[in-house]
Amino acid sequence: MENLNNILTLDINAKTKHLKKREIIQKAGENTSLAYYVKKGLLKSYTIDEKGKEHIFMFASEGWIIADMESQEFKQPTELFIDCIEESEVIFFDRKCFMLANLTENQLRENAHLLARRIAVLQKRVIMLMSVSAQERYNMFLETHSKILNRIPQRLIASYLGVTPEALSKIRGEIAKSK
Amino acid sequence: MENLNNILTLDINAKTKHLKKREIIQKAGENTSLAYYVKKGLLKSYTIDEKGKEHIFMFASEGWIIADMESQEFKQPTELFIDCIEESEVIFFDRKCFMLANLTENQLRENAHLLARRIAVLQKRVIMLMSVSAQERYNMFLETHSKILNRIPQRLIASYLGVTPEALSKIRGEIAKSK
Repeated sequence: MENLNNILTLDINAKTKHLKKREIIQKAGENTSLAYYVKKGLLKSYTIDEKGKEHIFMFASEGWIIADMESQEFKQPTELFIDCIEESEVIFFDRKCFMLANLTENQLRENAHLLARRIAVLQKRVIMLMSVSAQERYNMFLETHSKILNRIPQRLIASYLGVTPEALSKIRGEIAKSK
Repeated sequence: MENLNNILTLDINAKTKHLKKREIIQKAGENTSLAYYVKKGLLKSYTIDEKGKEHIFMFASEGWIIADMESQEFKQPTELFIDCIEESEVIFFDRKCFMLANLTENQLRENAHLLARRIAVLQKRVIMLMSVSAQERYNMFLETHSKILNRIPQRLIASYLGVTPEALSKIRGEIAKSK
């Protein structure tokens, strides 16, 4: 990711912002082509359904980019809220500028690699949501988020998995018992 | 997509195959770095869960690439089966070769654009699976798959949406009544 960090700080119009815990940086319904590179801290993106329930789309810690790619690619208002779980330092940049920037061939390849990796993670997520039990979903979450586990509140993990906090607590209890 | 078609037929080691309806081209558990570009026909990728139930991951018609990106990016055996819904003509190619091929800057940009678009579609799918009612999921499916709707059997649409064929039939009945 160091490569990308260099691109962002040198080549394109990008701005670093210091954000407080709980600060909202993007709301559903806005038109934006911004993407957010996390230098420090932890952010989440999420939707809110008709009943007011929050559904976590993704968590982003150091080195991750968080953005609403659907709204950007299909030129629609965003569906995702993005806010800070922790106090954070984030680079705001325009994805359109980034795609048009004067990147070297190596940077373009690095970019393609990051995009491919993101597709792989999303594929795993879709399969998980469709065909896997809540307990297996939790185990997959533990694997993919091992480095930031202690920084994410349980109720947010439950929302990411699509279960109630009570159901998650039960799953954790069962895993603890079986060990 | 014409660009990509040219790359595949000229620049890298790729092989066109003619496939019969129901022919399986990839099985879960295999190690493969192949990707499949659909010249003609209709393919699907899917998982089979512990109870033997099939869950559709994606449909791919003319101009689409279908592959298991997760297995390729994280070097794991594939989790996805891929087979033909219709008689099809498909280019088999090695994604590793494609990423290393001597592509022009424009081809690299075109590739990044396709990857970004795929992320956008997957984002929509995850949000749909997490937070949207079965009826809304069906409406979203109608929008995103309008061109190939009549070619996909109802039971496969139900599997893609994560509902039973009976539930889908009820939803279609309600939509017909409300018109």
